[in-house]
Amino acid sequence: MSSASQTSPVIDTARRAKEAAAALAPLPRTARDGALLAMADALEARTEEIVAANARDVEGARAAGTPESIVDRLTLTPERIAAIASDVRDVVALPDPVGEVVRGSTLPNGLELRQVRVPLGVVGIVYEARPNVTVDAAALCLKSGNAVLLRGSSSAYASNTALVEVVRDAVASAGLPADAVQLVPGESRDSVKELMRARGLVDVLIPRGGASLIKAVVEGSTVPVIETGTGNCHVYVDERADLDTAVAILVNSKAQRPSVCNAAETVLVHEGIAGAFLPRALAALEEAGVTVHGDEAWVKAGEAEGVAVVPATEEDWGTEYLSHDIAAAVVPSLDAAVAHIRRWTSGHTEAIVTADTAAARRFVSLVDSTAVMVNASTRFTDGGQFGFGAEIGISTQKLHARGPMGLPELTSTKYVVTGEGHVRS
Amino acid sequence: MSSASQTSPVIDTARRAKEAAAALAPLPRTARDGALLAMADALEARTEEIVAANARDVEGARAAGTPESIVDRLTLTPERIAAIASDVRDVVALPDPVGEVVRGSTLPNGLELRQVRVPLGVVGIVYEARPNVTVDAAALCLKSGNAVLLRGSSSAYASNTALVEVVRDAVASAGLPADAVQLVPGESRDSVKELMRARGLVDVLIPRGGASLIKAVVEGSTVPVIETGTGNCHVYVDERADLDTAVAILVNSKAQRPSVCNAAETVLVHEGIAGAFLPRALAALEEAGVTVHGDEAWVKAGEAEGVAVVPATEEDWGTEYLSHDIAAAVVPSLDAAVAHIRRWTSGHTEAIVTADTAAARRFVSLVDSTAVMVNASTRFTDGGQFGFGAEIGISTQKLHARGPMGLPELTSTKYVVTGEGHVRS
Repeated sequence: MSSASQTSPVIDTARRAKEAAAALAPLPRTARDGALLAMADALEARTEEIVAANARDVEGARAAGTPESIVDRLTLTPERIAAIASDVRDVVALPDPVGEVVRGSTLPNGLELRQVRVPLGVVGIVYEARPNVTVDAAALCLKSGNAVLLRGSSSAYASNTALVEVVRDAVASAGLPADAVQLVPGESRDSVKELMRARGLVDVLIPRGGASLIKAVVEGSTVPVIETGTGNCHVYVDERADLDTAVAILVNSKAQRPSVCNAAETVLVHEGIAGAFLPRALAALEEAGVTVHGDEAWVKAGEAEGVAVVPATEEDWGTEYLSHDIAAAVVPSLDAAVAHIRRWTSGHTEAIVTADTAAARRFVSLVDSTAVMVNASTRFTDGGQFGFGAEIGISTQKLHARGPMGLPELTSTKYVVTGEGHVRS
Repeated sequence: MSSASQTSPVIDTARRAKEAAAALAPLPRTARDGALLAMADALEARTEEIVAANARDVEGARAAGTPESIVDRLTLTPERIAAIASDVRDVVALPDPVGEVVRGSTLPNGLELRQVRVPLGVVGIVYEARPNVTVDAAALCLKSGNAVLLRGSSSAYASNTALVEVVRDAVASAGLPADAVQLVPGESRDSVKELMRARGLVDVLIPRGGASLIKAVVEGSTVPVIETGTGNCHVYVDERADLDTAVAILVNSKAQRPSVCNAAETVLVHEGIAGAFLPRALAALEEAGVTVHGDEAWVKAGEAEGVAVVPATEEDWGTEYLSHDIAAAVVPSLDAAVAHIRRWTSGHTEAIVTADTAAARRFVSLVDSTAVMVNASTRFTDGGQFGFGAEIGISTQKLHARGPMGLPELTSTKYVVTGEGHVRS
């Protein structure tokens, strides 16, 4: 079940990561924090070479006809590098998850039982586009005592190579093993596949990116995976919703930043309030530049209000638009809204707007998603908003971590049991 | 990523389980406990038909030449069924994990954040031989609000079919969906494979049994898996160990019940204490009927003491004997012991015997296993011993659950965020 006997550049990298993880495990917080501070300083001191490497990626992206919005996400400037270094210093200030006693008691026989947080070991991150993730992920993994294997997109290869070199030098200068942070060699998809199968060497793989990347990693890995990110989020406007509140939450959930996973993609409205709500929602969504893909009731309301509504097909209910589009339906009841959500959701975030406590309670208990918002925008599902101080991704699976993952989610636990010669009879 | 469009007897079963899980989620503790009590009563009331079905399995096993020890594990008697029913009543008395608030705070903007334990949903258990697992697993899953898919061994098919029928009738009589407890149809390995790929329908698969079963499930599943059970456990006798304590812990760890996963399989001894310890250990192990597979130092000590020691080969270090055999080596240091353990362990339980607090601390921090015992027998790694009241298995993986899994480990969490019209700016 391990890859102990194989060899390849990727497997060798993973093996070195495992050794580095073993060396990191007993280090105190001060050692890890020292390495993070050295990282931040080095990023600032070596800004020039990072920018130069990044320029090659940017040039390559432009030559390949990459849209300017993507090129912008790829671009590193001295200001952006300073912001990345500042984020690393913020991570230093976060509480240390390692060593926290999660549970503990003295058993009836006098054995002292403690369940203690420990690093996971080797964390693999497979991600797309933005090179700032390289440093973020390295900082969060190192803070939580883990070695990290970074596999960014080939479009950012020069940038990531430069960043990882700077980070590794800083880690080594602080007396920690440089192999605690490594770039996975190779630019082809094959190197990801090897990582996915490095069971016994990689403790967890976290894919961050588009749905196809996540699907490929989840389905092809023998290594444990934490699924992140896709968000087909719903706003349900209950029969007893306050209309102003409902309009504000709907527009905020959809349009405040449509390109992210916690933006709403479908609105469901109780038929008892549809007559009053749809005209106001249509006007507000139109003003926010949102195109509604509606069921018959929404199309009719659009005709009455003079707002164009695209007739929705079944495909709309399952679509994560990530754009100024929203699917919209009228439902006969709260339970029908829940049934729709359970059928179509990706399990990220759903919101109910209601003044009825019983309805809120029922919605919360029936909806099986990472986060349920009561009278609040879906956009709040976020590690920063939740006060976690940092986020390695948003898990939409149920095992290990669900929702925004902060430092504790990058740890496991072990039981430490202390006796004085205790034997079992 | 889901199996929504497929159909087959196994997939249909999983789909019904998912529906049952949705119906279970909002039920209060009293409803779930009521079903468990009905289960216990029904097992006692219908003992006769269970015993009759079991007799067919026993007959088949004997006809197939199954060893009597295995036949014994398979056999159900009225007394054993009463004990199973009693265990179910014990589960009723355990605290309800569902609804526990794991973390909560009011955010600076006034949003109320709660992280609440919820059922995982659909739990699949693939297990071997003993039919009591059928009822145990059903009781623990139902108590924690989950629907369960049971896939026992074909040698216990008649017993499991009878038990599940009794359990389902009881669950239905208590007003809960009978499909909360289902046997996976089919006796071939293909039905396990379908279960392993029922992504989107099965939330977690827990294999319980031999190493080959676990390996097959871990490597072939697209469904999340919790790896359980294999235990290549070590006892390390440090330079500063009390000799009596060390002998007692070694013999207890190895011989108190050699067939289970928390029994020791290797003893490592610091060279500084080997001269005093090996003769005493050899005598005690011989008295306990244990055969030592030793390195050169142990073989020599055996010769001096007149105790036969089998020369160990590399294979011995990786073997989970589950018998009255133990591998034995002398090591030059604590760090060498740790290196040996890290190389060969299955990550279950390791013990150190020492009077030196610094050595204990170092061993605990360097050993990366589910449980580390200080001056206590490896045999204590057990949900019952840890005071959890019940155990669905012992996880040897790092994600989600590590060590004995009780009711909380059969749950996930969700975030419930309550505002009064909060939107993000």
